[in-house]
Amino acid sequence: MSEITACYQLFGKPGSFEKKAEGIALGLTIGSWTDLPMLEQQQLKKHKGTVVSIKEFVDESYQITPEVIKAEVKISYPSANFTSDIPAILATVFGKLSLDGKVKLLDLEFGKKLGSNFPGPKFGIEGIRTILNVHERPLVMSIFKGVIGRDIDYLVAQLREQALGGVDLVKDDEILFENQHTPFEQRITRGRKVLQQVYEETGHKTLYAINLTGRTSELRGKAKRASEIGADALLFNVHTYGLDVLQELAEDKEIQLPIMAHPAFSGAFTSSSFYGLSNPLLLGKLTRYLGADLSLFPSPYGSVALEKDVALAIAEELTKESTFKRTFPVPSAGIHPGLVPLLVQDYGIDCVINAGGGVHGHPSGGAAGGRAFRQAIDAVLEGKELSEVVKEQNELREALKLWGSDK
Amino acid sequence: MSEITACYQLFGKPGSFEKKAEGIALGLTIGSWTDLPMLEQQQLKKHKGTVVSIKEFVDESYQITPEVIKAEVKISYPSANFTSDIPAILATVFGKLSLDGKVKLLDLEFGKKLGSNFPGPKFGIEGIRTILNVHERPLVMSIFKGVIGRDIDYLVAQLREQALGGVDLVKDDEILFENQHTPFEQRITRGRKVLQQVYEETGHKTLYAINLTGRTSELRGKAKRASEIGADALLFNVHTYGLDVLQELAEDKEIQLPIMAHPAFSGAFTSSSFYGLSNPLLLGKLTRYLGADLSLFPSPYGSVALEKDVALAIAEELTKESTFKRTFPVPSAGIHPGLVPLLVQDYGIDCVINAGGGVHGHPSGGAAGGRAFRQAIDAVLEGKELSEVVKEQNELREALKLWGSDK
Repeated sequence: MSEITACYQLFGKPGSFEKKAEGIALGLTIGSWTDLPMLEQQQLKKHKGTVVSIKEFVDESYQITPEVIKAEVKISYPSANFTSDIPAILATVFGKLSLDGKVKLLDLEFGKKLGSNFPGPKFGIEGIRTILNVHERPLVMSIFKGVIGRDIDYLVAQLREQALGGVDLVKDDEILFENQHTPFEQRITRGRKVLQQVYEETGHKTLYAINLTGRTSELRGKAKRASEIGADALLFNVHTYGLDVLQELAEDKEIQLPIMAHPAFSGAFTSSSFYGLSNPLLLGKLTRYLGADLSLFPSPYGSVALEKDVALAIAEELTKESTFKRTFPVPSAGIHPGLVPLLVQDYGIDCVINAGGGVHGHPSGGAAGGRAFRQAIDAVLEGKELSEVVKEQNELREALKLWGSDK
Repeated sequence: MSEITACYQLFGKPGSFEKKAEGIALGLTIGSWTDLPMLEQQQLKKHKGTVVSIKEFVDESYQITPEVIKAEVKISYPSANFTSDIPAILATVFGKLSLDGKVKLLDLEFGKKLGSNFPGPKFGIEGIRTILNVHERPLVMSIFKGVIGRDIDYLVAQLREQALGGVDLVKDDEILFENQHTPFEQRITRGRKVLQQVYEETGHKTLYAINLTGRTSELRGKAKRASEIGADALLFNVHTYGLDVLQELAEDKEIQLPIMAHPAFSGAFTSSSFYGLSNPLLLGKLTRYLGADLSLFPSPYGSVALEKDVALAIAEELTKESTFKRTFPVPSAGIHPGLVPLLVQDYGIDCVINAGGGVHGHPSGGAAGGRAFRQAIDAVLEGKELSEVVKEQNELREALKLWGSDK
């Protein structure tokens, strides 16, 4: 019998959690138990939720008041109760419960059979490395800046500048939608052309992730069209649509493009310490299981920031041993070349170093900004301090002068 | 020029909000302004976000610390920047911003042109009243209980019992998915048959809202099939799918069934005082605009409870003057017949009085439970105290004895 085990963070009086957990396990499955005749108990047993474990945090630091402590409670739900899609799973384990006071869904453990229903990434880290033919360093990504209201020439020029700097990926602004100045198809075809030119000039390949937007039922058709006319990758605002929409994109065999999951709107679910979902579950495990090849999340270094242990836990979920391919962690916001040693220390080489201001804000322009990142990466991989190489590396020197070499 | 105006709750030092708000208005639109040459300013002006108002709450009760106060800030975004679908709107007004510390999205005001892109309810309060031919009292709804793992005979018997009690609507359990014991189509056809029997026996019409579940891309097909084989209404877990999925169901002209929006999982967005979306926006305004005919939300009376002013604000959004039809408010959880006077006082007659335990837990069974609600409603509409009618009304008397006549 397959099942799903949910780990919740609850608050209550010490010793009160067993009853509370039993109430959840029954309330979200068969409703009642002790009142049932023995025969019905036998019939319904395979549908009953089970309290797996209760861990009370008696340590004072976790107490809200002297009487109210935190607990982590694991409850498993038989998969006989729901279909294997994520909307059914979320409705079961956190439907009504999300409305029931201070409860946060920290994790979901999928039974083997249930987990195998998810697609996982089509490409994953290895697949994207193969496309780029870059295997032994972190990738570098940059983001269009200030393109709302601008025309296609402006956008394409910015794309060229970024590619010339040696970045591996460029992503659309997640708030750039279908518009008359820079229509979707034109961005793809013009973008492809300019990236091909840069490749011919420099031998460097850059992928452009186009923002897949529009009505839900149109997305798969648009993604196929994007693929046909030469798109490299899709940027997708997963959380303004729904997790199942990501899964349907990932499952579609006609869409052979890496999917870059953007965390826009996810803070509405994850930011509270008391409610919603944990970041490692939402931007880590679920984003990987449901099929994203890259997952962006706030880095611990910028103004839009996660705590460091949370950001690391997201990356761990994206990359740890599993039956699924690994998803590229993309810690984002507040990234500049001086942070590269720290990023490599924290995430290893299997991450994407992603910058907007840290590329475009370079004193010598966007191309120089990209080069500064590549220079910093080379230095780190050669085991050198950034300060050792700045004499020869002009772009990195300028970057460090502006942003410093530390957090 | 059409636009959307977002109202945010922010926290910060007194006097700090103007700068913060300007940063948001620019950051979520054209990125920068004062650095731009005059010509570019002219070109981009129609894409620039605008700070509409800033209201600081200097009243001590809203202060987090002496230095940190609450503010409500309104910012408007030109609709030239986004397409008129809700994913584009959410990504614009609360995409990155949802990740940026203590920010809550309280409300969205849609410009006339932008708002007119939404469908609103197909049926609304009047349409559902017409189907039922019940015009001058609150409707009564009851919920299946303990049907997980049970067979179709058990479910149908429970449906019959509820209908015999005179309830107007019965809703599926929101955690009942496609399953071998009670398959979707069989629930519809067997349900229809038994409700027809009850109608022939009693002259009372009851609608059964079937839980529309499965993969996102299959929902519209399933809804049409449900309509063809005689379903009365759809129950839909909007928030485990996505708001745009609700809109696509509502817009589909081949799906001529009322949609009942369930709040499952919505607590993940709305429960925090500091993050996410407000309940009146999510379960009120957006649920109505995007096309739900009925919206369930936690009543202020049960264990899963909203504060009373919040629940009333949701109902207000669902029913106030607008170009859209009105959506039935369905305050849910913790409802028993003794609360009917309070419910009518709070919500008027244009609401659905919805109970699970308050129907099935009646000492004389589910049919009696339904009758107790109807008796309570009759008494209230005749201007009587419940205590005045209990002599003649056995079921109500029993209910009041068990649950009391007050909150």
